[in-house]
Amino acid sequence: MASQNNNPKQELDPKSKLEMLGKSIVEDIKYGKNPKFVTIARTRSNIIYDQKSGFLKLGKAQEERTFINVAQSKRFMQTMAVAAKCHKFLKEGLHTSIRGLFYQLKYSLGEDIDESIFSEQSESNPLIEDLEVALSLKREDLNLNANRKGVLAGKMKVIDKSGGEEVTIDCSKMGRSGWAIPSDVDNNIEFVDVKANYVLVVEKDALWQRLNEDNFWKKENAILITPVGQAARGTRRLIRKLADMGLPIYVFTDSDAWGWYIYWTIKTGSINLAYIGNDVATPEAKFIGVSLSDLDRYEFLNKLTIKASDIDLKRAQEMLNYEWIKKHKEWVNELERMIKTKKKLEQDALQGPSLTFVDQYIKEKISNKEFLP
Amino acid sequence: MASQNNNPKQELDPKSKLEMLGKSIVEDIKYGKNPKFVTIARTRSNIIYDQKSGFLKLGKAQEERTFINVAQSKRFMQTMAVAAKCHKFLKEGLHTSIRGLFYQLKYSLGEDIDESIFSEQSESNPLIEDLEVALSLKREDLNLNANRKGVLAGKMKVIDKSGGEEVTIDCSKMGRSGWAIPSDVDNNIEFVDVKANYVLVVEKDALWQRLNEDNFWKKENAILITPVGQAARGTRRLIRKLADMGLPIYVFTDSDAWGWYIYWTIKTGSINLAYIGNDVATPEAKFIGVSLSDLDRYEFLNKLTIKASDIDLKRAQEMLNYEWIKKHKEWVNELERMIKTKKKLEQDALQGPSLTFVDQYIKEKISNKEFLP
Repeated sequence: MASQNNNPKQELDPKSKLEMLGKSIVEDIKYGKNPKFVTIARTRSNIIYDQKSGFLKLGKAQEERTFINVAQSKRFMQTMAVAAKCHKFLKEGLHTSIRGLFYQLKYSLGEDIDESIFSEQSESNPLIEDLEVALSLKREDLNLNANRKGVLAGKMKVIDKSGGEEVTIDCSKMGRSGWAIPSDVDNNIEFVDVKANYVLVVEKDALWQRLNEDNFWKKENAILITPVGQAARGTRRLIRKLADMGLPIYVFTDSDAWGWYIYWTIKTGSINLAYIGNDVATPEAKFIGVSLSDLDRYEFLNKLTIKASDIDLKRAQEMLNYEWIKKHKEWVNELERMIKTKKKLEQDALQGPSLTFVDQYIKEKISNKEFLP
Repeated sequence: MASQNNNPKQELDPKSKLEMLGKSIVEDIKYGKNPKFVTIARTRSNIIYDQKSGFLKLGKAQEERTFINVAQSKRFMQTMAVAAKCHKFLKEGLHTSIRGLFYQLKYSLGEDIDESIFSEQSESNPLIEDLEVALSLKREDLNLNANRKGVLAGKMKVIDKSGGEEVTIDCSKMGRSGWAIPSDVDNNIEFVDVKANYVLVVEKDALWQRLNEDNFWKKENAILITPVGQAARGTRRLIRKLADMGLPIYVFTDSDAWGWYIYWTIKTGSINLAYIGNDVATPEAKFIGVSLSDLDRYEFLNKLTIKASDIDLKRAQEMLNYEWIKKHKEWVNELERMIKTKKKLEQDALQGPSLTFVDQYIKEKISNKEFLP
C-alpha cells in the first residue's frame, strides 16, 4: 500500500506530481503500452479501522485505471482532463470549486468532442478522489476549494498569504464573529503565536457565540472552535493541525445521534474521507459532553431531557457494533442508556439555570478530567 | 397601523419597552381589567406588498392578546414569560439563541407549574414574533441571536464593542476568509470608513472566494458579500444598512428558482419576515445576473446551460403571478423563457472560458448598467 506517510511522491509539490503522472502516461503511449495509473480502492471492503493509529483509512487493495479498456476508457480520459485542468489552476495560481472545474471541463471538452461527457457534477467527484489518492495529496493542494464552514476564536494568529498582500489575523480580536475557517488550511497560510492550553470544539454556533461572549477562551486560555454541525474538511484538518502542535482536543456536542456522529468523525475520520484519514482524523480527541451520565451528576438536567427520535435510537444501536466504539465501556453505557430510557440531551440545556452555566460545566469537566474516550 | 417608522415607542430602548409592557399588564390587573397587549396580525391576509415602499409588510389588522380568554390564556402567559426572560438577558447584558431561551423557560417554569408548557421549541417562536411586533423591535434587540451566515470583504471597518474589549476589524485584511457577518449588526457595533462604490452580493460562497482571490473588491472598490445561499436575518439587515449609506446594491445569483428567490427576498423581503420588512428589505437592489438573456450576449453560455427542474418551472410559473414581479417586463421575459426552453443557468458557468471571466462579466454588467429591476 502506498501509505500516506511513506510515499516518496509526497516530497514533490502538487504541480510536479501532476507532471510526473502526465509524463508516465506519455511514456506509456510512446512505447506502445496501454496508458495506466494506479490508485487505491475506495470500496467499502478496503476501508479499515486501524487499531494502532485509531482512525479509518484505506487498506492495501490497489486499482489500475487503464485507457484501453471498454469499461474504463471514458473515466480514464476524464481523469486526465481533470488533472490537466488542476495543473492549469496551479500554474495560474488560481483556485476554484468542483463546480467551477466542472464548467471548465464542460466548456473545453465540448469543443473537441461531440458529446459532453461531464453532464453531471457527480461524475467529476470520484475522478478527483482518484487523483487525490494516486498522487497522495488533497484536492485543496490541487487548488480545488471544498465547502467551508466553522469559526474560531482564541489567542493565535493566522498569517494568510493567499492574496497579493500578506495579512495577519489576530483570532483574539475578532469580536462576535470569530475567524472563518477556510477550505485550505495548509497552503500559503501559517498559524503562529498559538498560546492556548487546549482546543474546545463546540457543535453548535449558538453555544460558541454564548461562550465567546463570556470571553471563555480568554479566561481559560483555550482555542474555541465551532464546526457548525458536522465538520467540513478544512475544520477537520485544522483540528488535526492544532493537535499536532500538542494541544489537547475536547469535543462538546449534543448527546444524540448527530452529536455523536460529529464527535466520531472528528476523532476517527469517516468512511467518505478514509482516503485522507491521516490528514483529517484526530484520534487524540476526547468527548467532554453532554452525556447521559451527566444526568446523575447535574440533577436539574433530568427535567431538560427530550425524547430520542427513532433515528437516534437506530443509530445508537448501530454504533454499538462499531469496533472503535464498542471497545469503550463508557460509550456502551451511554448508548444503552439512550436505548433504554429513550431520552436525549442537548448541549443547550446547560443554559437552563443560567446563561453562563455552560462555562462552569466545561471548566468542571476539564479540571476533573471527566471525559469519554 | 403602528407603522414601524412612526411608532413613538421606537425611541425607547428595548429594556424600557419591556418594562412599559410589564407595567401596563400590572395596571390592568390592579384595576380589575383583563390584562392585554396589542400586536399586529401576521396572518397571510395581513401581509401586503406596499407599492410605494416596494417591500412586503404587515397591514393594519391588529390583534389583541388577553389573559382571561380560554383560547389565549396559555399563550398570553407564555409571552409574558418570554418577555421576562428577555428583560433578564438585557439586564445581564448576555445573549442567547431561541433554543437557549427555550431551556431557560423549561427550567424555570417547570419549578412553578406542573406541566412544562414549552415542550417544543416551535411554541416559543410565534411568541417572540408577537413581542417583536408589539414592541416594534427585532429579536436581536432583545439579546436573542438568530442563525448567522454570510461573509464580507471590502474597504470598511467594523468596530465591535460586544466583548469586554472593543475591537476594530479591517474587512480589507481578512485574507481568504472574509469577515463573518453576525446575527446582530445593530447593537454595540459600528461600520466605519466604508470606502466603496457599490455592494456586490454573490449567492454562492465558492464564487465569493473566486472573486476574493482576484482581489475583485479592491480593484473595483466594492463591498463583496456572500449570503451563502438564502440570506440570514443579519446579512439582510446589513445589506439594508449599506444601502442606507447610499451604496448601490447589486445581486448576483444563479438563473433558477432558488437564485431568484434569494434575490427577491433581499429586495422585497419575505412573507415570514414581513413583520420586520422595513428593517430587512432593500427595494433599491438590482439584479446583475446571471440571466437567460445572457445567452444572447455570451455565445459560449449556450453550451453550459443545464436542465431546469420541475421545481424551477413550477416556481417560475408562480412568480409570474406576483404583483411585484409581473410588473417588470424584463422579468416576465426571463420567466417565460425558462418555462419555454426548460433551461437554467448557474453563475458558476461563467468560469467556463477562464476562472477570471466572472470578474469581467460583472464589470461589464455594471459599467453598461445592464441590470434587471
